[in-house]
Amino acid sequence: MVSDRITIALDAMGGDRAPAMVLRGADIALQRHPDARFMLFGNEAQIAPLLAKLPLLGKAASLYHTGEVVADDAKPSQALRAGRRSSMRLAIDAVADGRADGIVSAGNTGALMAIAKFVLKTLPGIERPAIATMFPTRRGESVMLDLGANIECDAENLVQFALMGDVFARTVLGLLQPTVGLLNVGSEDLKGNDAVRGASARLRDGTIPIRFYGFVEGDDIAAGTVDVIVTDGFTGNVTLKAIEGVAKLFSESLRASFHYSLSARIGYLFARGALKKLAARLDPRGYNGAMFLGLAGIAVKSHGSTDAFGFANAIGVAVDLKVNGFLQKISDELARLSNVPATEQSAAL
Amino acid sequence: MVSDRITIALDAMGGDRAPAMVLRGADIALQRHPDARFMLFGNEAQIAPLLAKLPLLGKAASLYHTGEVVADDAKPSQALRAGRRSSMRLAIDAVADGRADGIVSAGNTGALMAIAKFVLKTLPGIERPAIATMFPTRRGESVMLDLGANIECDAENLVQFALMGDVFARTVLGLLQPTVGLLNVGSEDLKGNDAVRGASARLRDGTIPIRFYGFVEGDDIAAGTVDVIVTDGFTGNVTLKAIEGVAKLFSESLRASFHYSLSARIGYLFARGALKKLAARLDPRGYNGAMFLGLAGIAVKSHGSTDAFGFANAIGVAVDLKVNGFLQKISDELARLSNVPATEQSAAL
Repeated sequence: MVSDRITIALDAMGGDRAPAMVLRGADIALQRHPDARFMLFGNEAQIAPLLAKLPLLGKAASLYHTGEVVADDAKPSQALRAGRRSSMRLAIDAVADGRADGIVSAGNTGALMAIAKFVLKTLPGIERPAIATMFPTRRGESVMLDLGANIECDAENLVQFALMGDVFARTVLGLLQPTVGLLNVGSEDLKGNDAVRGASARLRDGTIPIRFYGFVEGDDIAAGTVDVIVTDGFTGNVTLKAIEGVAKLFSESLRASFHYSLSARIGYLFARGALKKLAARLDPRGYNGAMFLGLAGIAVKSHGSTDAFGFANAIGVAVDLKVNGFLQKISDELARLSNVPATEQSAAL
Repeated sequence: MVSDRITIALDAMGGDRAPAMVLRGADIALQRHPDARFMLFGNEAQIAPLLAKLPLLGKAASLYHTGEVVADDAKPSQALRAGRRSSMRLAIDAVADGRADGIVSAGNTGALMAIAKFVLKTLPGIERPAIATMFPTRRGESVMLDLGANIECDAENLVQFALMGDVFARTVLGLLQPTVGLLNVGSEDLKGNDAVRGASARLRDGTIPIRFYGFVEGDDIAAGTVDVIVTDGFTGNVTLKAIEGVAKLFSESLRASFHYSLSARIGYLFARGALKKLAARLDPRGYNGAMFLGLAGIAVKSHGSTDAFGFANAIGVAVDLKVNGFLQKISDELARLSNVPATEQSAAL
């Protein structure tokens, strides 16, 4: 993989265990992408001592002090107006003015989306950006959106998410004809609310050149029935977190099972190699890093509660998007699909 | 457990593999509850030959022929008007006129709810019944509602679900002070849509005597953060099915892991006992059987795709509700909480 001096701007103050988690995450990411450079935005008094203990990262990172932080409970509108010197805002600004190739934050999701949308702008034809993530399925890997950027969605929003998910699956996942499904409470036409029924009708009418599978249900997510799962931000957020919670419970229960008896402990010794492969495949930290699709810049949101290993993966997502030329590809595809010139920037917010 | 001649009415034609699955399920349930009696509603030509092969069930069951079935894609309103001789409707009628103590169906959920609500009526003070199920968590067992009866909910609906969930947890789960949480995309007050914010404000204002924990997120479901999880039917349905899908993927992946190498196979032989305990605890069929809370009669919905083992558990849920005197307890509790006389029946639909 070519990683020709990619620079990632990091909101060093975002996340439950920031800034230590962010710095250790960047240090792990640096071992995977030795040519990467980092811009760290945050409180120098807290960051500098931590950075001193990570000499490798110290050489690859520049520190930009700011005392301001977007609070976890700040309203997006508040963060947008009042947080112009926040670590999150300054990191996004670095992408907007071309000093960085992408921004990663584990902070307030709503604020990150609002600021990123305002500063980076949306791609031509995109009304509302969406948060997307990849996750492991029975068949391989799928992508789901929206995961919380848009709590209430109408049919048109869902149609745009379908379009963005399709382009993402083709350009980044490399699928030739990805299938797209709408998450619903049943597969029949009459099921669900107005938004999903309306979106389904639009996606079926032949004007949008994607391979629309139809409605999918909750159990189709893990089954990998489709490559792209489209839903509103409320359902997507709750569902994804519910899945993560169950995966965690399952892992813990399995671990406990192997302590259940002497026989089980012996069994573990024999099966350890295979079980570690399974654990690695299903480890949610391996899929940390949600992409903001529809913006004219690379922005990745890490889980607030992740650890350094998870944060390093979120950085990896931003690096991958840059390396794969995602922004150019999605602009080209959107232009082709919607016949809007790719150079015409939307000024929406 | 006393099971003093409990009679359960079964919609023998509901479910993907009906009527064979329903009959074999009833046969399994009969072994667990030898005093139970069954009323089977459905197509005699299909049911009679199957019943002939299950002599024990044959003695405990009566067959009521009808050629009509509620289609899986029938609209609830359609099923209500046109399906008066359907297997589902006749089974519910048997509960309404006192011939049966409860009804179990694996058929069309929307139709079952609409017919059950019309025929059995709602309990005093309940505007819209909800579908609830128990599920295993890190701490033990929790209950979640609504799981699909009410696709769009306002704040008042969610408050009523909270109340019903609280009463269910106290009377059937036997908890003294169950905690109740509202499913949302974050724990802060401003997160979510109008319905969850409005419901939260109502549940906090002190007029409703339940132990309201506040907002919970998707990962709190498996963690067992609260005893009762309240959500709208769209989110609840998608989330529950997503969880089931992941549990299934995890089980399959684990099984595959033990075939990964000779060493892993040997490991399985040693750990088998412990793993089987784990599998049994997390088997979704063990939690099959969603209760319709808020109706003046016992109605249980089985998964349409379940097998005989899962259907037997759904029958077990109906039997347990009857044995525990759930209906009387919930009527008493609702009357106490809302100061509405328990004898005053709501005629709402």
